[in-house]
Amino acid sequence: MSKVKILNDPVYGFISIPYGIIFDLVEHPYFQRLRRIKQVSLTHYVYPGALHTRFHHALGAYHLTCQAIDVLRSKGTEISDAEAEAVGISILLHDIGHGPFSHTLEHTLINVTHEQLSVMIMEQLNQEFEGALSLAIEIFNNRYHKPFLHQLVSGQLDMDRMDYLNRDSFFTGVSEGVIGYDRIIKMLAVHNNHLVVEEKGIYSIEKFLIARRLMYWQVYLHKTVLSAEQMLIQTLRRAKMLRHRGIKLGVQGSLNYFLENTFSEQDFRLNRAILLERFTSLDDTDIASALKYWQEHFDPILSFMSKNLITRRLFKLEFMDRQPDSDHIRLLRQKIEKQHPYSHDVTDYLLIMGKETNTAYSTSKEEIQILLKSGEVKPMSLISDHGIQPKIFTKHYLCYPKDVKI
Amino acid sequence: MSKVKILNDPVYGFISIPYGIIFDLVEHPYFQRLRRIKQVSLTHYVYPGALHTRFHHALGAYHLTCQAIDVLRSKGTEISDAEAEAVGISILLHDIGHGPFSHTLEHTLINVTHEQLSVMIMEQLNQEFEGALSLAIEIFNNRYHKPFLHQLVSGQLDMDRMDYLNRDSFFTGVSEGVIGYDRIIKMLAVHNNHLVVEEKGIYSIEKFLIARRLMYWQVYLHKTVLSAEQMLIQTLRRAKMLRHRGIKLGVQGSLNYFLENTFSEQDFRLNRAILLERFTSLDDTDIASALKYWQEHFDPILSFMSKNLITRRLFKLEFMDRQPDSDHIRLLRQKIEKQHPYSHDVTDYLLIMGKETNTAYSTSKEEIQILLKSGEVKPMSLISDHGIQPKIFTKHYLCYPKDVKI
Amino acid sequence: MSKVKILNDPVYGFISIPYGIIFDLVEHPYFQRLRRIKQVSLTHYVYPGALHTRFHHALGAYHLTCQAIDVLRSKGTEISDAEAEAVGISILLHDIGHGPFSHTLEHTLINVTHEQLSVMIMEQLNQEFEGALSLAIEIFNNRYHKPFLHQLVSGQLDMDRMDYLNRDSFFTGVSEGVIGYDRIIKMLAVHNNHLVVEEKGIYSIEKFLIARRLMYWQVYLHKTVLSAEQMLIQTLRRAKMLRHRGIKLGVQGSLNYFLENTFSEQDFRLNRAILLERFTSLDDTDIASALKYWQEHFDPILSFMSKNLITRRLFKLEFMDRQPDSDHIRLLRQKIEKQHPYSHDVTDYLLIMGKETNTAYSTSKEEIQILLKSGEVKPMSLISDHGIQPKIFTKHYLCYPKDVKI
Amino acid sequence: MSKVKILNDPVYGFISIPYGIIFDLVEHPYFQRLRRIKQVSLTHYVYPGALHTRFHHALGAYHLTCQAIDVLRSKGTEISDAEAEAVGISILLHDIGHGPFSHTLEHTLINVTHEQLSVMIMEQLNQEFEGALSLAIEIFNNRYHKPFLHQLVSGQLDMDRMDYLNRDSFFTGVSEGVIGYDRIIKMLAVHNNHLVVEEKGIYSIEKFLIARRLMYWQVYLHKTVLSAEQMLIQTLRRAKMLRHRGIKLGVQGSLNYFLENTFSEQDFRLNRAILLERFTSLDDTDIASALKYWQEHFDPILSFMSKNLITRRLFKLEFMDRQPDSDHIRLLRQKIEKQHPYSHDVTDYLLIMGKETNTAYSTSKEEIQILLKSGEVKPMSLISDHGIQPKIFTKHYLCYPKDVKI
Repeated sequence: MSKVKILNDPVYGFISIPYGIIFDLVEHPYFQRLRRIKQVSLTHYVYPGALHTRFHHALGAYHLTCQAIDVLRSKGTEISDAEAEAVGISILLHDIGHGPFSHTLEHTLINVTHEQLSVMIMEQLNQEFEGALSLAIEIFNNRYHKPFLHQLVSGQLDMDRMDYLNRDSFFTGVSEGVIGYDRIIKMLAVHNNHLVVEEKGIYSIEKFLIARRLMYWQVYLHKTVLSAEQMLIQTLRRAKMLRHRGIKLGVQGSLNYFLENTFSEQDFRLNRAILLERFTSLDDTDIASALKYWQEHFDPILSFMSKNLITRRLFKLEFMDRQPDSDHIRLLRQKIEKQHPYSHDVTDYLLIMGKETNTAYSTSKEEIQILLKSGEVKPMSLISDHGIQPKIFTKHYLCYPKDVKI
Repeated sequence: MSKVKILNDPVYGFISIPYGIIFDLVEHPYFQRLRRIKQVSLTHYVYPGALHTRFHHALGAYHLTCQAIDVLRSKGTEISDAEAEAVGISILLHDIGHGPFSHTLEHTLINVTHEQLSVMIMEQLNQEFEGALSLAIEIFNNRYHKPFLHQLVSGQLDMDRMDYLNRDSFFTGVSEGVIGYDRIIKMLAVHNNHLVVEEKGIYSIEKFLIARRLMYWQVYLHKTVLSAEQMLIQTLRRAKMLRHRGIKLGVQGSLNYFLENTFSEQDFRLNRAILLERFTSLDDTDIASALKYWQEHFDPILSFMSKNLITRRLFKLEFMDRQPDSDHIRLLRQKIEKQHPYSHDVTDYLLIMGKETNTAYSTSKEEIQILLKSGEVKPMSLISDHGIQPKIFTKHYLCYPKDVKI
Repeated sequence: MSKVKILNDPVYGFISIPYGIIFDLVEHPYFQRLRRIKQVSLTHYVYPGALHTRFHHALGAYHLTCQAIDVLRSKGTEISDAEAEAVGISILLHDIGHGPFSHTLEHTLINVTHEQLSVMIMEQLNQEFEGALSLAIEIFNNRYHKPFLHQLVSGQLDMDRMDYLNRDSFFTGVSEGVIGYDRIIKMLAVHNNHLVVEEKGIYSIEKFLIARRLMYWQVYLHKTVLSAEQMLIQTLRRAKMLRHRGIKLGVQGSLNYFLENTFSEQDFRLNRAILLERFTSLDDTDIASALKYWQEHFDPILSFMSKNLITRRLFKLEFMDRQPDSDHIRLLRQKIEKQHPYSHDVTDYLLIMGKETNTAYSTSKEEIQILLKSGEVKPMSLISDHGIQPKIFTKHYLCYPKDVKI
Repeated sequence: MSKVKILNDPVYGFISIPYGIIFDLVEHPYFQRLRRIKQVSLTHYVYPGALHTRFHHALGAYHLTCQAIDVLRSKGTEISDAEAEAVGISILLHDIGHGPFSHTLEHTLINVTHEQLSVMIMEQLNQEFEGALSLAIEIFNNRYHKPFLHQLVSGQLDMDRMDYLNRDSFFTGVSEGVIGYDRIIKMLAVHNNHLVVEEKGIYSIEKFLIARRLMYWQVYLHKTVLSAEQMLIQTLRRAKMLRHRGIKLGVQGSLNYFLENTFSEQDFRLNRAILLERFTSLDDTDIASALKYWQEHFDPILSFMSKNLITRRLFKLEFMDRQPDSDHIRLLRQKIEKQHPYSHDVTDYLLIMGKETNTAYSTSKEEIQILLKSGEVKPMSLISDHGIQPKIFTKHYLCYPKDVKI
């Protein structure tokens, strides 16, 4: 009877998936794979509820997109059924190119961004679905003549962001990230083919921007999360290095394949079908399972890192305002080498240096536009009292085993 | 400064873990392992949010137990600090014996219940912690002279149940399961050393009982969940059978060990240290990873089942009031054999029969006791208007591939 | 720009009111008056948050009705825009006939039910709006050829009930009353022109029925609420009696008018314009203000009751299973007369006897119909496991000043 | 059995009131009076749920204070039971001096601030309770040697603010105002006898400050709310003026008394018992009831204003960045006089000019102090990235009947 499949979602109550291409895409193994890719990688080491997946996020973003389209139509913006479906497909698949542990391993396993992979997978699916995704791909690539459709998928106020802030805040329990997404969506409008926000929604936008910033420091760049993720990267780097030296890692199939080779976008373009086949068989399980196995590997660095990750004995991470000076680093290296005398290159993996930038706010990019009651459109930053100009921060960090005392 | 570690929990806001033995147990690899065991197995195939783990549940139940102890103390019940800590340990570890996919694989992988394993692991930890868990074990085994302490851990109104109803309802988004846990806890009291509920809490109890029943049908015994879980059981059964025939399964370590042997409680008692070492290295990852690998296994039944589980092409499941008649079954077997002519014993795995009983309500066991304003104590079922006598239902089911039409 | 006025509602987030007749009715003084009539009378004496008004409830019920219409339309039920608007008007005005303190004073101030008054006021408004409410009135009176439209306004699953359970539970904080209204609405369908519920929604219905019952005992028939409301009734009875004896009460305008006269439906029919003018100028304020003034009235019963109500020194109320026996009553009378020797008829006001019935469940009336997956329609009570047959309870009570001890 | 009275609160779940002086104060007519004083005056004209009262707020703030005391004690701060009770009393009564419509009429009815009245009422109660409030009064007046106790009642992070932001946001449904009060309270500590916040709580504080600012513009200074409140002030001003001219207003008792006289703090000090007796008999009911009555008063300005308030036909309010220029005002006066030619002084009431300042942020006053992990204490504004320096805004406004077009 019903023309939609209804899913329970603790965040929005219900999500409706219309039978037809949307439903078929959800059922596709490429999309089902997202069930095995956690949205926020190892964040659950700090916030135990944060086990939600890219699958759930993609459905949530799709749900909000449907709401946004309803709102825009009710305000007189013309959006055909075909366009609405295409935006829906576009948002549904916007993260389809994510690999295991999402962003964390993005440049460790292969040398291709998830956006590039998303496009390639969409193209692959377009072939399979005989052209039914063409318009969706045009919108995704911002080549369609109604840019506001692309902005719903990717822009300062896209439904991706709207859902992930909501969802990450919900599953972490970090109430500072709660946003008034329903109000923001109700305040969306289209002006000159671009997405704008009605003036009445300005406080919700302001709160949205703040929530985003707070989520950066409290969740996305949380010390312990960062430490866990950096440890994971080093572990995979070590594994790759060992593999290149011909050492057996005891892992099979696709993971082994990507440990043995580092493919570039070019490679993917040239052998799309084969490489995507391989890539889409990877997910968090492969890494988690390898880590468990490597706990007993004979390479002391690989086993040390793996064991610490599995039992959650995470490295200590110190933030600092400036790049750490070389004396300090030299000292640290010595201490680490003494405490963990596994091999000459131990500090290449056990001493992690890096920096993170709170990029939440860059107003340089396409800015949020406010539709004033007067009919005029102004960028958010020019409207009095709302032009918070956050300092952009770069924090450096050093990360190393807890038993190394300085 | 703080004597507690504070965790964010989307269900209760915050959970405080006191430094000392409680914190040390949480840090222990046995407990950290629970991070990799989902609370409700494959329920996330229907409710995508239900990815929460035994780790999170154990912490939640511990949190509620602390609240309950505060309430009881405030009403004059004497509970020493040592007793309070022991109940805390007891609830924290009540599920420590769960293996991969919790209840689902409970009798497939080994022949020991999770309760028996919990006790054995607690004993093992007690050795490690030099006797610090002795009182906790006494309470867990209901051998302590204050039975209400045991009842907080295991009984009609234990904090285990209180947390899992809450948490499962939260993460599935099934609002029918929401319970007034805070009110129930506030209404707990001790009478003659037994846990009772003050009369004012009777409506909350009633709602709790209903919520439990609704969760059974909507979540725990949901058709599709049942189908997925039964498929998982059959897949493992198949794998074990193949292994017994000497066929290589490509899995390593502990999982292989438990596929090759079926240990009894007796075995565990005799070789506790070794078998627990093995057992506690298992978790959901091992199974998930094996399923992925088996998709390409040469045994057609193993690969068929594994592929269907991974891509979520689940069997159809029909509930029926009576045991299906033998003609119907014979017909089904023929159709399955025709459609899936893999081997002579294909229907041993592709035709699943069983029954489920809504056991939510059995008043036969220790019943909830109400402390009337008059000071008298009466079982819930004797109090007018509240004595809902639910029918106990046994539903039979048949479960088989969707492409088999009858 | 927007064609709707958006209101914040803590229960549903936002309520949209389309400009046009709906908006004009909301702006009408008759409807604005509902801002001054509390939804649940004196319930806030027990649940301090329960100050919400008929105004808010009417808007909430309107909001749910709009959602229900969307759902039905999406399932193929034809509902014209005119019909949709008419149902909207009908639900918006369904409580417009409520007087001060809603149900509590329904038969004390005048002898007309609020439903009869709602119809008369709608007719009056229909005149004012030149026939624009004709269809709404037809639907309200169940004379329209699509009964399901009436059932949305008044029936076992009407949007009135759906909103008030939700809203009363929200503002009292009684979580036992929470219902899955969104799920229920999503499961509504029309079969043979009657409102039915799809089988998948059966658990939500079950929870809805339980929630309703729990709200009766925990809120609507709460001892202390009942006591306060009965005291209010007796106070008004006393005032009317004094007024009939020619005693000045110091109140002006319409309240005085209705204290001096007791009008019947007949009277209202004959002098509709005048009496409605009077009636619609009454609200909670008039009564509250009179009570404050009467605290100093020379009639000792009137002042005693008023003072106790204002300072919340409420009578004690005892529930009993049977009608209290006459000896007990006689004794009580003597004690009251001794303790409060104000006049010969003191016990006519200070001893309140009555009974309340938990009518939440009467299946005798039009029952909830379930649309099975087979296409068949069955009443809820015939579907296995869901046929809760609640006992219907009549509780008698005695209510009198706390200082009267027996 | 229980030593506490438990109240349902939709905001916090439950509020426990210990029997003893706290309970007795809650039962006192002075405190019960707060049930009839809405927390946010006429805000419900915009947010229909915002009907909550000072009674509910005072209980909520008391609840949070109890939590804060528990937290501080758990961190080693010594707070005796007597001190804890005194802070409890102090916060419970902090708003006891509010008159009808809280802040709105604060300087219209009498010339005394509500804080001054709170102190006087506490002193009166102290007499009645034979000195039991002495310590509470000392703390309230910040004369006690542990300033952090006073800071819980009144300061940058007091429990008053914590509750009202929470509660106002809850009942208005303005989610922008939601704060992580539980986290903030958990992060409170005492350093050198002053209230500080642990570094980990800094994001919650940041969100709290933003939420406060957003609540100012979205709720407390909402155009329509401001218009309604200003209209109310003008109506009362008119009434007072008429009364001074000897014109009968048809109101009785205390309201009449305060319309006839304007008392200063001095007057209250000299005749405390009598004036407080009068003052504490006033509440929202008296004003609401007078407005209803005045709809028919022969003074055209009084009746015009009253009728518009009762039927919610509110004046138009324009914000402007600068003081409106005199030409503009002169023009407006002419138009108003033409449209509403009631008397020569009509524009003294129908043209309302004023300004409002977003004072949410003044860091000039006692600033929030952060306790760094290093043990050092720094003001919030000095901590990098968190030092939001909001612009302080003064907005001027003009407010006049909607039918006056310019």
